[in-house]
Amino acid sequence: MAVSVLTQKKSMPEGNAVDKLLAATAEEMDGVNRLILSRAESHVDMVPELARYLIESGGKRLRPMLTVAAALLFGKGAGNEVNFAAAVEFMHNATLLHDDVVDESDMRRGKPAARMVWGNKASILVGDFLLGQAFMMMVETGDIEALGVLSSASAVMAEGEVFQLAKTGDLTTTEADYTEVIRAKTAILFKAACEVGAMSGGADGEGRAALAQYGLELGNAFQLVDDALDYGGSSGALGKNVGDDLREGKMTLPVILALAEGSEAERATIANALGKIEASDLEVSQVVAIFERHDTLNRTLQKARAHADAAVEALSVLPESEMKTILADVVRHSVSRAF
Amino acid sequence: MAVSVLTQKKSMPEGNAVDKLLAATAEEMDGVNRLILSRAESHVDMVPELARYLIESGGKRLRPMLTVAAALLFGKGAGNEVNFAAAVEFMHNATLLHDDVVDESDMRRGKPAARMVWGNKASILVGDFLLGQAFMMMVETGDIEALGVLSSASAVMAEGEVFQLAKTGDLTTTEADYTEVIRAKTAILFKAACEVGAMSGGADGEGRAALAQYGLELGNAFQLVDDALDYGGSSGALGKNVGDDLREGKMTLPVILALAEGSEAERATIANALGKIEASDLEVSQVVAIFERHDTLNRTLQKARAHADAAVEALSVLPESEMKTILADVVRHSVSRAF
Repeated sequence: MAVSVLTQKKSMPEGNAVDKLLAATAEEMDGVNRLILSRAESHVDMVPELARYLIESGGKRLRPMLTVAAALLFGKGAGNEVNFAAAVEFMHNATLLHDDVVDESDMRRGKPAARMVWGNKASILVGDFLLGQAFMMMVETGDIEALGVLSSASAVMAEGEVFQLAKTGDLTTTEADYTEVIRAKTAILFKAACEVGAMSGGADGEGRAALAQYGLELGNAFQLVDDALDYGGSSGALGKNVGDDLREGKMTLPVILALAEGSEAERATIANALGKIEASDLEVSQVVAIFERHDTLNRTLQKARAHADAAVEALSVLPESEMKTILADVVRHSVSRAF
Repeated sequence: MAVSVLTQKKSMPEGNAVDKLLAATAEEMDGVNRLILSRAESHVDMVPELARYLIESGGKRLRPMLTVAAALLFGKGAGNEVNFAAAVEFMHNATLLHDDVVDESDMRRGKPAARMVWGNKASILVGDFLLGQAFMMMVETGDIEALGVLSSASAVMAEGEVFQLAKTGDLTTTEADYTEVIRAKTAILFKAACEVGAMSGGADGEGRAALAQYGLELGNAFQLVDDALDYGGSSGALGKNVGDDLREGKMTLPVILALAEGSEAERATIANALGKIEASDLEVSQVVAIFERHDTLNRTLQKARAHADAAVEALSVLPESEMKTILADVVRHSVSRAF
C-alpha cells in the first residue's frame, strides 16, 4: 500500500484547516447565512423558532462551505453556489431533525435535540418544510442539471437511512452493507455539495467529476471517523455519549468486524448490549475492550484514512491553487479529529 | 347569493363523475401507475414493501388523475403530465405517511396505517424517500417553471401542517386560521396538480390560471367536506372513526363555529372532549349535538359548496368540452359525498 498522504504531511497544522476554509469562503458564506435565515422564516412562528434553534446551534456548516469552496476553486460562478449551499444545509438539517426522531436522540450539538423542546411532530414537519424550501432555492437557480444531482441525493439519503434502520441490530450485517449505508446516508450529500459547487463555478466535466469524487471520499471518511469516535476514537476512551450507536443497535464497522472475528463469548457480549437502550457504561466498556482486542477501531480509522487519501488524490487532476490546498487540508483535519 | 351551480344540476348522476374521470384518463394513468410502481422500487426491501402497501391500498389517485385530465383538457402535452402526476401522488403519499405519525393514526384507507406495520421510523424515512423520488421525476421533465410550482407546494404544505399542529387544541383558533390551514395543507397540492397538468398540456396563461384556481377551490371544498364528514357529515350520523379530529384536538370549522357561538356550558363540553384521545362515543355525540344546535356541520358544507361553485366558475373562461364537463362533475361529486 502506498504511503498515506496524511502520514506524509502529518506535521502541518491540521487544526487550522477548517479555519482556513472558513476564511476562504467567508464572503460568500455571509450571503449563504443570510439566505438560510430568510428561508427559515414563516408566518407560522414554530417554523423559524425550531429551524433557527437547530441551524444556529453551532453546526460547522461544513457542507455549504464545501459548495462555496468548490465554486471558488473553478472561478466565480453565476452566483448559484449561494443557493445551492443554503439548499444543501437545509437538506442536512432536515435529515438531522428526522434522524433525531428516528434515533430517539435527546441531544444534538451539545443542546437538547429540537424534538425534546418542540416534540417529534414538529420536528418531522419542520424537516419537511426545510426540504421544500431547499428545493425552492435550487429551482430558483434554473440549473436543471444541478437539480438532478441534489434531488437524486435526497432520495438516496432517505433510502440509506431506511437501509440502516432495516439493519438495526441485525448481527448478519456485512461490511458491504455498512459501506452502502454510509455512502448513501452521508457521502452522497458531501458529493452533491461539492459537485453542484463545481458546476456553479463553471467546472468542465473532468473538474466536476473530480469534485464529486472528492466529496464522496471525504463523506465516507467523515462517517467512518464518526463511527469510530462514537466508541471513543483510536484511544477507545470512554466519555459522554460513548456507545450511543451501540445502544441504538447501529451496525457500524467496529461492531461488524468484531462480530466477524470474535469468539462465541465475545459475540454474545456484543449481541447482549446491542440495541439495549439502558446498557450500562460497564457493558459498553466491555464491548470496547473486545474492539481493542480485535483492533476494530483502528482498522475503522485506517479505512477512513484510505478514503481520505482517495479524496486528496481525486484533486490531483486539478492545477495547484490555494483553495485546492485548503480542500486537501480539510480532509486531513476531518480524519485527524479521531486521534 | 347566486344559485349554486351544484343545486342547478342536482339531478345529474353525480356518483359517476369519478368513474368518468377514471375512464377519460385511463390510458395516461396506465403510464402513471407503471411509473409509480417502478419509482417505489429500491434494493432496500422495506422501501417498496411499505410504499406499495400504502400506494396500492385503494386510494382513488384523484390528484394524479386531475393532473392528467388538466393536460388532456388543453390537448396532448409533451408527456410531462405522466411524470408530474406520479410526482404529485408521491408527494401526497409522503404527506400521508408523515401525517399518520404526527396524528398517531392507527388506520388509513380501511387498513392498519403503515406505521402500525413497519413503525413510525420507517414511515418517516420512506416518506422522505418518496419526496426525493417525486423531485427526481419532476427534474426529469426539465420544466423548471412547473418545478417551481411543485416545490413551492411542498414547502407550503409542510408549513400548513406545522400551523395546524401549533393550533391543535387552541380554543382561540379563528376561522381565518382554519382557512389558512386547509388552503396550505390540502388545497395547494390540488392547485399544483391541476396547474402543472395544464402547463404540460400547453395551456396559455389564462388556461393555466383557470386550472390553478379550479384546483385550489376544489381542494378547499374537498377538505371542508372531509372535516364535516369526520363528524358524520350533514346527518351528523355517528359511525366508525367519527370524532377522530375531535380526539386529536384538530380545530376544524365545525368546532370553531360552535365555540364562537355556544353557551358557556357548550364551550366547556367541547373543550373537555377536544384533544382527549380516550373521549367516549357519548362525549363525541354530545359535541355533535352542539354542532347540530348551531348548525355548524351544514354551515361547513355550505362553505364547501361555495368553494365548489367557485371551482366550476373558474372553468367558465374555457371552451366547452367533454373533459371540462367531467372536471365540473368531479367537483359536484366531491361535495355530494357528504350528503
